[in-house]
This record gives sequence, structure tokens and C-alpha cells, in this order.
Amino acid sequence: MTDQRSYPTGIGTSSTDSIELLGLDLASDVLGKVSFGELAYWLATKRRPTPGQLRVFEAVLVSLADHGYTPTAIAARMTYYSAPESVQGAIAAGLLGGGSRFLGVTEDTGQFLAAIVKPLGDTSAYADADWDAVALDTVATAKAEGSKVPGLGHPVHKNGDPRTPVMFQIAREADVYGPQLSLFEAIGRTHAQVLGRTLPLNGAGVAGAALADAGLPLALLRGFALLARTAGLIGHLAEEQSDPVAPSIYMEVDRNARYVAPEH
Amino acid sequence: MTDQRSYPTGIGTSSTDSIELLGLDLASDVLGKVSFGELAYWLATKRRPTPGQLRVFEAVLVSLADHGYTPTAIAARMTYYSAPESVQGAIAAGLLGGGSRFLGVTEDTGQFLAAIVKPLGDTSAYADADWDAVALDTVATAKAEGSKVPGLGHPVHKNGDPRTPVMFQIAREADVYGPQLSLFEAIGRTHAQVLGRTLPLNGAGVAGAALADAGLPLALLRGFALLARTAGLIGHLAEEQSDPVAPSIYMEVDRNARYVAPEH
Amino acid sequence: MTDQRSYPTGIGTSSTDSIELLGLDLASDVLGKVSFGELAYWLATKRRPTPGQLRVFEAVLVSLADHGYTPTAIAARMTYYSAPESVQGAIAAGLLGGGSRFLGVTEDTGQFLAAIVKPLGDTSAYADADWDAVALDTVATAKAEGSKVPGLGHPVHKNGDPRTPVMFQIAREADVYGPQLSLFEAIGRTHAQVLGRTLPLNGAGVAGAALADAGLPLALLRGFALLARTAGLIGHLAEEQSDPVAPSIYMEVDRNARYVAPEH
Amino acid sequence: MTDQRSYPTGIGTSSTDSIELLGLDLASDVLGKVSFGELAYWLATKRRPTPGQLRVFEAVLVSLADHGYTPTAIAARMTYYSAPESVQGAIAAGLLGGGSRFLGVTEDTGQFLAAIVKPLGDTSAYADADWDAVALDTVATAKAEGSKVPGLGHPVHKNGDPRTPVMFQIAREADVYGPQLSLFEAIGRTHAQVLGRTLPLNGAGVAGAALADAGLPLALLRGFALLARTAGLIGHLAEEQSDPVAPSIYMEVDRNARYVAPEH
Repeated sequence: MTDQRSYPTGIGTSSTDSIELLGLDLASDVLGKVSFGELAYWLATKRRPTPGQLRVFEAVLVSLADHGYTPTAIAARMTYYSAPESVQGAIAAGLLGGGSRFLGVTEDTGQFLAAIVKPLGDTSAYADADWDAVALDTVATAKAEGSKVPGLGHPVHKNGDPRTPVMFQIAREADVYGPQLSLFEAIGRTHAQVLGRTLPLNGAGVAGAALADAGLPLALLRGFALLARTAGLIGHLAEEQSDPVAPSIYMEVDRNARYVAPEH
Repeated sequence: MTDQRSYPTGIGTSSTDSIELLGLDLASDVLGKVSFGELAYWLATKRRPTPGQLRVFEAVLVSLADHGYTPTAIAARMTYYSAPESVQGAIAAGLLGGGSRFLGVTEDTGQFLAAIVKPLGDTSAYADADWDAVALDTVATAKAEGSKVPGLGHPVHKNGDPRTPVMFQIAREADVYGPQLSLFEAIGRTHAQVLGRTLPLNGAGVAGAALADAGLPLALLRGFALLARTAGLIGHLAEEQSDPVAPSIYMEVDRNARYVAPEH
Repeated sequence: MTDQRSYPTGIGTSSTDSIELLGLDLASDVLGKVSFGELAYWLATKRRPTPGQLRVFEAVLVSLADHGYTPTAIAARMTYYSAPESVQGAIAAGLLGGGSRFLGVTEDTGQFLAAIVKPLGDTSAYADADWDAVALDTVATAKAEGSKVPGLGHPVHKNGDPRTPVMFQIAREADVYGPQLSLFEAIGRTHAQVLGRTLPLNGAGVAGAALADAGLPLALLRGFALLARTAGLIGHLAEEQSDPVAPSIYMEVDRNARYVAPEH
Repeated sequence: MTDQRSYPTGIGTSSTDSIELLGLDLASDVLGKVSFGELAYWLATKRRPTPGQLRVFEAVLVSLADHGYTPTAIAARMTYYSAPESVQGAIAAGLLGGGSRFLGVTEDTGQFLAAIVKPLGDTSAYADADWDAVALDTVATAKAEGSKVPGLGHPVHKNGDPRTPVMFQIAREADVYGPQLSLFEAIGRTHAQVLGRTLPLNGAGVAGAALADAGLPLALLRGFALLARTAGLIGHLAEEQSDPVAPSIYMEVDRNARYVAPEH
């Protein structure tokens, strides 16, 4: 009887003399010929991106890489302060905050839009007016259900997230502007008719729409936000190495701690 | 008295109407104009890379992104299997293996070479023979101390790591071939004279030398291996979503568990 | 103007001469007088447990501490193998698998039961027949909705999870047997009438019911499973230090990797 | 040919009808009969602790469980704020700070003392004066090497860590006061003669000495600090669920961020 244990993979294997990545020879076909962004796309989809898809993908990664002193950056800096011997621990701690409240918007928006777009079938002939109709229906349904439209609204950029129009433009130039971005932009044009007030389309949301139109897997959109954020966290840790702020944050909190007895 | 609390940073800040990254306006100056690799370099160093530095940096990231079923990939897949609702947890678990035994070689090699190179001062006029002399001394010192030269040797690619010559070539073409790569290549040429056997220069080691020559901070070289690996882990998780192997690995181990009583 | 920054906490504070924990003096009132299990309960609830609550809480922790080569144990061992310098990373990697698929059952069951029990108001006079009626209704509702009753069924212990009857007995002896355990036990007695087949009440589920009856916060039940599992992971890492299996698992997977081209 | 794959373990295995832990039947021999602290000791050492060892072990866990708003507690709270759906991520982030700077003292002290004690052989007949001689030599050697004695000194409790005398007393009462605690206490008595000033013996250090004397494995002492800390982190997260401070800390930092251009 042959033992049929086998762990299939399409990513990478290696032997004594070669390293294969995605079915290619890493040394001769990939190194120096594929950018890191392109490889990341390829690894996630097992398809090489078109130049337009790659341009949008890189722009999305850039837009999500950092937002200053977010809770995730603070967690990473605190962890580095406590355990400077483990850079991997500090980055991991930062990424662990990549959940529903902050980084989750990208994935939530992409999946929300895709779920509406998919049943529409071929939308290649849709005009803005068609998308506006879909958008009005989408927002009205969300309102009736008491739920929010993911990606609509921003706690800080109340007059408009500066990343949003640029991302639409890049996607148009790159010929990657598809149904998810179309619907998201239409939501931006029409939601005030339903909600009675104008909210910004936020940059993390447009990132999700753009990733979906660029062909990235919906179930992993959060992963790309995490990849982007890893670059930002490295920046924070480099800064923490040269000009630390974690000790000041710690002292600020510790010095202003106040004991409160439980009420029961 | 003014309260002087202040948390300085050179990375990013945002206001209602703008997002600044590295002192630039994210929307108008960065998005669509800077690749993700370029931004990652910039965030880590606060300097924009030259085209040559960027080319080497991207090549290094590509070379480190994935190596198939490494322990870190297995850990990430296991974690995804257990907690599929938390992609960030699976990626973090994978990165946590980015320590001394596997990913550490990149940083160890870069730091080892830099420590030898630094006291040499200006080495721009060094010929190969000069580097060979330094290399012989370096290997002889390591041998005398009973320590290993980081980056020398590879458990699998015993006849030569296929990435290594390509990386030297890319660095030369990009005009980024500097003292760390020079010394590392000289170690490759000369170590057999001291050690009595020929070992390959490994790809993770040459990555460290290249990052050092490309101007990345030595204290964070492991961070770049982690950034690269994040892309690989996303590939593994995408595959785990469509064609999971974690359940098979788990079953293989669980089914072949055997209780062994302690000896005391 | 007074700066009113303040970070209230009921957990701990310290000054030059004393350390306070939960409003008590750590050195004179806690050390040597409170067991670790008792302190863990106290920290989570800010109430000292009754002896019965503590007995049930410790029994639950013990029941959840380890299950051999689970995916989380494998992830922790793989991470330790890759980064032996960071025990905290290996434990963290193991805990990150404490999500919905394995450890989540405890929290899901506790919350599910509590949501049914709460609207019932005072159930102190309920007899078994009353709980059976509630249970039948609960299972029938879940069946009608096509959802599962958390904690019902087990992939391995198909004839009954050996932990379950012992936990019911401990809770009865400790006088902590309350509405959640009552309902869970009634589900065990009655579900076959609705589902047409007999499923075991699983040990992670009864743990959730017991934690709820013992007064632990429902929103943190998963946290106790993680605390318990930390002890198990330390056991695995101790074993990995003396008799490692991670290299064998890695080799098994790596040696049986097989490249499969993508289908698109 | 027999396939000899096998993954030995002394921790746990399970079959359809039973769960074995440490070679015992979990349901009938462990549940309700072994406290969580006792199980944690047993898992780590594969030996059941004596009552005295267990008393010291539980006291050490209690002493290390929490210290208020430490960097690790802040990291855990930040992570919970960002990703409230993943309690395991928040706890993992907190534990990742369990590294060299804060939690490391316990392991460093235990290992440092054990390395000095081991070559002494049988010290059962040592009187205080003998330990004082060893201690003087130990401190003098450290001073000559320019290194610090781990566990000596504390940033806050400059007049003495209140946990330290209590831990010595508990160990004496429990008959677990052995060579590591003896040497540590002697260092406390004698170091001022060498260093010219009096430093406190810190509580994390005495914890390491006590764990060593209680028979826990030196290579995992950090693991016990992490186990203890898990209970503290659960307390912080319970508080964050009811009375969050993470949003205030985030706002404090974000509002006081100040952009500083790089100097190069």
C-alpha cells in the first residue's frame, strides 16, 4: 500500500538546486523582474496582475500603510518598549489590532459591495444613472434595516477623505474602475437623498472597493490592509529605536492612573 | 504653566482635511506616485530611495517572501484553521516564527558584516584582493572563536543557493554593490582556505548584505524579512481558504501521537 | 485650569512603598493567601469568588487546559522551533488559534444559554420538567432556523464527552448548579426528541455553562479558555525543549509537499 | 515496510471514550481533584508538586499577575479597542510584551542564580555566612565585568519591594527555601559592601529564585510570568469592556502628536 500523504500547494517548493515560486524559477524568472507589490498580488491570486491592476493594488497598499499614532501603532511601540529583542513580536502586536474597528472597513466595504454587485450579472453597460438607482436602493435597504453602509462616513475627515477622489482617478486611468468602485461612487452621489445628510466616502472603504475591482480575493481583503500596515509599523519601530515615545506614553498613563473601587 | 506633553513623529499625522505621510500630502504627492516598496523603504529610513536602492530593496523582499511549507507557514495555516474569523491572528502567528532560527539570518548577516566593515573607513578603492584579505581574517577569527559566519552554509542548497548570484548581479547593475556585499562575496571566495570545505552563501544572508548596502537600518533588518514574509503568508492563507491542508496536517499529527511516560 | 486627564482602574496601582491589587495590599493581604485561580476570578469580576464558585472555576480551567496535539499546540511548537529566543511569541501564536473553531465553543455555549435564560427571570423554582420544556423549545427553534445548538455534539467523543457528567456533579456539589447548567443538561436529555438522534454534550460547552453559572462575565468566557490553554501551551513548550517534535512535523510536511498549478 | 511516523508526547491524548492528561484519566482522576495551579506545575514539569512547591508556585503566580497600567496592559487594551472581536488577539498582544525589559527579570534572575549555584554541588549545610561569601563574590564579579546582577534594583520601589520579604517567608514556611533563594537573599544582605549603595531585591527577581527552588524548569521561567500575566490581562480586558480607557489614551497621544522632520 502506498502512503498517499501529500500536501499540495501552488505557492512554493524547493530542491537542492532550485527554488520554485508560483511555478516559476525564483532566481531566473522572478528576482529582479517582479516588484514586491506584484509578487504579493500574484501570491494571493495565483495570477499575474495586469499593469492596471498592479497600479491600483500598489496605490491601495500605499493608502493604507500608515495613519500616524493609531491604536495599532501604539500597541506595537509599547510592545517594542517591553520586548526590544523581538521585533517580530512588536509587529505582530500591531497587526493584531487589524480587526473590525479600524482596518476592518476595507474588507467590510469590499464584501458589502460585491454582495450587491454579484447578482446584477453583467454591468458593463451600466451608466451612472443605473448605478445611482442601485445605490439608492442599497442605502434605503440599509437604512430600513437600521444598519450602516460600510465605508460611508469618517470620524475625522468629515468634509471628505482626501484619498477617495484620487483613488477613483487612479482606478479610471488604470482601466480597473469596475462595478464595486462604480457602486461605491454612486453611493457617494446619492446617499444624502435617503439619509438627509452628506457623509464622506472613506479612504479605507474605497480601498476595499478598489481591491475588489482589481481582482483580489474578497475573503482576504483584510490581509492586504495588514500587509500595508506592516510597512507602517516598521516605520514606527524604526522611529521608536531612534526617538522613542513609548516610555512617555507609559509614564503619562501610569502617572495618571487612579484607583476606582468596584460598585457592587 | 503650559502642559508640554507632546509625542513627536516623522511618520504621519492627519487633520480634518488632509493626511500627511512623511511630511508629504498623501493624496496629492504620494498616492499613485510611489510604489509600495518605495514607501516601505521611505517609512523605515525617512529617505526616498534612489532607483538603484529601490531595485535592490524590492529584489530582496521578493527573495524572502516565501519558502513553501516553512514552520511559519504551517503555524499560520494552523491558526487560520482554528480561528478563521481572525486573519490578523493567523498572519501574526506566522510572523512570530520570524525569529533567530529562520528569518534571523538576514539580520545577523547584515549586522555581522557591517560590524567588520565600519571600522575600515572608506573602502571605495578596495579591490577584490583587499576584500579577500578582510574576508580571510574574518573567517579565521570566527573559526578561532568557534563561532559561525552568519549567512555561510544552507541546510538544503548545499551546492549553492540559486538566489545568491542573482542578487549580486542585481546589486551591481543597480550600483548598490557596496562594502557589505563585497565582503560577503569575498567570504564566499575565500572561506574554503580557512575552513577546508566549501559552503554556499545563503540567500537570506545575501539579503542582509544587500539591505545593508542599500542603506536600510541594521537594527531593523529582520523587519524587512517580516514584511516580505507577510506577502507569503497571505498567499498561504488564500490557499488555505480554497484548498486547506491544515486539517490534514493536524490529523497526521494527532493520529500518530503516542503517549510516552516521563522518565523520572 | 486643572488638567483632568485620568485613567481610572480597579485593578492595580503602585507607589514607592506599596503595590495595591484590587484595592488590597498585595504583599500583606494577597500573597500566600489567595490561590492563582482565585486571583484570576477576582481580577475578571472584581468579586472574590465563593468557595463553590472557585471550585467550579478551577475545575473548568483544568478541563480546558490541554487536549494534546491540537492545531494551537502545533502552532506554538512550530513557532518555538523557528524562534526559540521568544517563548512569549510561541505562547502568543498558540493562543491566537483560540478562536471560533476550537476554543470558541465555551463562550458560544455560555452566551447562547444565558440569552435564553435571562428573559425567564427567576428560575430558582424550576423543576427538571420545566427545564425540559425550555430545552425542547430551544432545540426546536434552532432546528427551524437551521442553526446549531452550541456545545451539542463532538467530533471525537461521539458516545459522550467524559468531562461532562463530572462537571455537572462538581457544580452540584459546589452549589453552583444554576440556570445555564440546568438548561444545558436539559438539552442533553431532550434534544433527541427534536433532532431524531442523540448527540453528546461536549466538555467545552459544559465549561461555558459552568462559567456562566459561576458568575464569570459572559463577554469574556473565551478569555478563561485562553488562560487555561496557556498552562497547556507551557507544557508543550517544556516538552519541545526536551523532546522536540516540531522538526519532525516540519519535515513530514515539507517532504510531502507537492506543487499543484492553479486551475485558471 | 512499517511507516514509523510517530509524535511522542507526555502531555495528553484522547480517544472516543476518554481523555488522558499526563497519563491520568482527565475525567475521573484530575477534574475537581487538582487545582489549576497544580495542573500548570504538573504540565510544565511532569511531576506533581509537593504541597510546599505548589504553595510557592501559586504565590509567585499571584505576585506576577498584574502591575496596573504596564506597557503590556496598554498594548492589550489598545488591541482590544481596535479588534474587539478577537479577545485572543488582545491577550496575545499583551503577552508579546513579556520580553526582556519587564517580565524577563524573573527568568534572568532564576537562571543567573542557578548558574552560580549549580557548580557548588550540595549546599544543604551552608550557613548564612557561606551564602554571604558566595554573594560577595557574585556581586564583585558582576561589578568587575560591568554587568548587572539581575533582580537587584527596582525603578519604583527604591526602598524595598514589598513582595520580596513575603516571598522569602512563604518559601521558608513551605520548606522550599533552597539555594537560589538563599543566594538571592545573601545578595540583598551583602551587595552594598561591593557597590557602595543599597538596592532593593525586586519582586520579579525573587519570583525567579523561588520558581527555581520550587523545581520549575529554568528554561521556561518566563513562561510562568506569562501565565500569571494572562490572568492580569483578562482583568484589564474585562475592565476595558465595562469602563474603557483605550479611547482616551489613543486620543491623548493622537491629539498631542507633533510632526518633526527628519534631520538628514
